Parts: sequence; structure tokens; C-alpha cells
Amino acid sequence: MPQPGPLSLNTVTVRERWDLAACIEGCARYGIPGISPWRDKVAEMGLARAARRIRDAGLVVTGLCRGGLFPAADAAGRRRAIEDNRRAIEEAHALDAACLVVIGGGLPPGSKDLPGARAMLRDGLHAVLDEARAAGVTLALEPLHPMTCADRSVLTTLAQALDLCDELGAGVGVAVDVYHVWWDPDLARQMARAQGRIAAFHVCDWLVPTTDLVFDRGMPGDGVIDIPRIRAMAEAAGYKGFVEFELLSRRWWAEDPETVLRIVKQRHLTAC
Amino acid sequence: MPQPGPLSLNTVTVRERWDLAACIEGCARYGIPGISPWRDKVAEMGLARAARRIRDAGLVVTGLCRGGLFPAADAAGRRRAIEDNRRAIEEAHALDAACLVVIGGGLPPGSKDLPGARAMLRDGLHAVLDEARAAGVTLALEPLHPMTCADRSVLTTLAQALDLCDELGAGVGVAVDVYHVWWDPDLARQMARAQGRIAAFHVCDWLVPTTDLVFDRGMPGDGVIDIPRIRAMAEAAGYKGFVEFELLSRRWWAEDPETVLRIVKQRHLTAC
Repeated sequence: MPQPGPLSLNTVTVRERWDLAACIEGCARYGIPGISPWRDKVAEMGLARAARRIRDAGLVVTGLCRGGLFPAADAAGRRRAIEDNRRAIEEAHALDAACLVVIGGGLPPGSKDLPGARAMLRDGLHAVLDEARAAGVTLALEPLHPMTCADRSVLTTLAQALDLCDELGAGVGVAVDVYHVWWDPDLARQMARAQGRIAAFHVCDWLVPTTDLVFDRGMPGDGVIDIPRIRAMAEAAGYKGFVEFELLSRRWWAEDPETVLRIVKQRHLTAC
Repeated sequence: MPQPGPLSLNTVTVRERWDLAACIEGCARYGIPGISPWRDKVAEMGLARAARRIRDAGLVVTGLCRGGLFPAADAAGRRRAIEDNRRAIEEAHALDAACLVVIGGGLPPGSKDLPGARAMLRDGLHAVLDEARAAGVTLALEPLHPMTCADRSVLTTLAQALDLCDELGAGVGVAVDVYHVWWDPDLARQMARAQGRIAAFHVCDWLVPTTDLVFDRGMPGDGVIDIPRIRAMAEAAGYKGFVEFELLSRRWWAEDPETVLRIVKQRHLTAC
């Protein structure tokens, strides 16, 4: 099996202790060539300054996190979400990001209308597609684990993401996070179907037991996901890009980021 | 929309405070015509006695929980699982159960081989199929929520369960629990495909937030699942049976079972 693609650090992995400046500096210091910032960290530093600092450090922006989140309880809320995605597209463009990572968003508060929320996601994507194409920003649809369906992501499977890609056409791809898709009995077939459309590849691990539905992701190697198997599927589907470490984890947030980055560097080579 | 099918109580809903005798008596007292016992509660009472008491109370056994759990770390473990399923089939027969509910089981300890575990599930089903047919016991394959894939169920979607049904043929069906399938973008299509093969219909609700991956299921009406929508799909697929309340919930286990059954009776009519 070939070595994994180059390493990228998603800034959420060390979000509690490092601002974007520290992340950029950390990547440079540890020889991590890619970075994937979250929008709040970019805003904190200022967009133009963030773009310049990242460029000066020679880092590739493997994605900007994150757009999407289109479902809302009323038309005004849906308009605000679309406006916010337009800003996210501009930011991704300014950062020269490989993609804007797009998540579905959950059900609007009080709603049980899952097909309705999925229609809002679809409508929202249609509404911003022209801007994304004009800016040259790929919208990377990231299905999240079905356990987040109610409150974070009505986009729950790779098949559903690829159906949206089929419908939307050029300028749209998928972000595959092993944590969100590893359980899927249809995974091999859908990964093959994703040929040429994988815009990002994220890793973390499924811990046994998992004690929180959002903030208990594991370090690759500490859980039960056969990450190399899924990476091989991505490569067979033409993906040659970065391996992005994205951990939302109270356990790892409590660690010294120097320790986290040292272990990330090791696990990139031994567990991916 | 027609009224929901008759009510059945899965004994796990009150497992912390009531033994099987109390459940049978409770069903009779509250006018609940169906019961679905777990095997440990049956064993506690004794199989013959349990069968007689349930029959004497005039209750329909809508399912016996549960068989399956075939993946194991070695051949001896897999043989033990198959033997245990043979006993479960005998018990389901003795209880005149409408089905034996079969769950997948998780990855064997230490394993990351998900396709391998799925093959063990398939092999285990093939191994006990003749006995099930001879006993007239329907094996009801119940996909569990993908968040249980690592440690409880490598059977994660209705599509996967129906693929197994297609392969195994007569004597095998599916158990649809709204909690486990509600998030599935492919649900409507798979429910239609399940035509004539739905052996059981279970309800509980998805709470926001959900604080535990196993023991935080909600009472129908307290969460975000559009249960009547999924029930309509089941009925369109020919299901005319019971609506079984199965809550694994620390919150409801802490309640007086009299309160639980009173609320179950109400929610059966107002939330299903």
C-alpha cells in the first residue's frame, strides 16, 4: 500500500488552546504542509491577514470549515443562511482553499419534517452554486454520521451527497470523513461512484465505547475504523490529496497541542 | 390516517422494576394486547411457565428479543453463538412468538474487520435458517442505528437487512424500529421494497440532545421522529401488525412502571 497523502491539520483539533496564528506556526514547526481552518478562527485573525500568514508559511489550505447549515424555521432564516454561505465562498476564495466544506444542518427547531429540511439543503445549494463556480470554490458536501441527523446534519450518507452532486453538476464534490461513513454497508460502491469527486479526505477514529455524540472522536489508531481500507477506496476513486486530521474531542482538547501534533504526525504514518 | 395497529409492550421498557410476571399482569391490567419479552426475563420465569402465563393472559407475543450476535473472535465463539440462536428459536416457538428479533452483533473485540464481521452474520443466519423454518419461527432482522455498529450491530441499514432477506429467502423478514431507521435518506424506497416482509414495527423517539448512544431513547412524541409517516410506509408495505414500544432509557427505567404504561397507552394513540 502506498504511503498516505500529505498531512493537513484541521484547526478544530486544537481549537481550545491555539488560535489560528498558533496553528499556522505549529504546522510550520512540525512540517505539516496542509491546514484547514474554521471560519471563526479566520474571523478572529482577520481574513486578509489570515490569507497572507498562511501563504507566507507555505501552507496549502485543504478546506475551509464550513458552509451549509441551510435548513431554518422561516424564510428569513433560510435567507440568512444563504447570505452566510456567500460570505463563506468569498472567504474560501480569499484563502485559496481547495474547497468549502459544506454540512447539511439539522432539523429546524421544533420540526419533524426531515424531507422538508433536506429540500432546504438542496435549495440552499442551488442558491449559492453560481457564486461558488464564479469564485472557483468547490463545494465539498460532507455527509455526517446519522447520529447527528436531528441537530447537525440532515445529510447523512455518501449516496445522498453524490445524488446532490449529480443534480448540481460542476463545482460540487464530496468530503469523505472516515468517522462519518465507516459503518455504511454501501460504502465501497459509493466510494467507487465518487470517482473524481472527492475534494477532501478527513480522518479520526471511532472509539469503543463512544461517550458523546459529537465530542468524543478518537485519534487514528485508537479506535475500530480500518482507515487504510477507506483511504485505498479514495485513492482508487482518483483522490490524490491530503489526509486531514479533524478531531472534535474533549480528551484531545485537554492535551498540550505540542503533544497532539507530535502524535498526529506519528499516526499519519502508522494508522492511516 | 388510520388508527395505529394494536399496542405491544416490549419488556425492556420497564426492565429495571418489573419481572416478566409483573409485565404480563401489567399488560392485562392496562388492556395492552401484545407483549415482546427478552430472553433473560423468560429464563428467569422458566420457559414453559412463561408460555403458559402469557397464553392464559390472552397476550400475543409480537417478538422474542433477541437472537443474532453472530460475530465472534474465534470459531468456538461463532459456534456458541449459533447454538444460542438454536435455543432462541426453540424458545420463540414455545412462546408462539410472531418472530425472533435478530440483531447483528458488533465487531469481535480487537477487530477492525467490518466486512468480515458482516460475513459472520450472514454465515450464522445460514446456519440456523433450517431450524427456524422447521419451527415456523420468522427471523426478523433488525438493523440498528449506525452509531451501534462497532459494539452492537454490524447490521446498520434496512437495505442491508433486505439484501440478506433476498439471499436467505423464505422464513426471514425485517423488524423496523423507527429509532434505528428514521435518518435514512433511502428509507421510503427501502420500506416499499420491504413489501410483505415487515415482521415487527418498533417505536421510540430520538431526543435532542441525545446524551447516551444506547440508553437514551425517548418516549414517542418527545423527540423529532415523524412516527406516523414511517408507520404509513409500513402499512403501505402491507404491515398490519402491532406497534411495539421498546424504550431503552435510564430516564424511563427510573419511573414507576404504572406511570410508564399509562403514558405508553396515551402515546400509542397520540404520537404513533
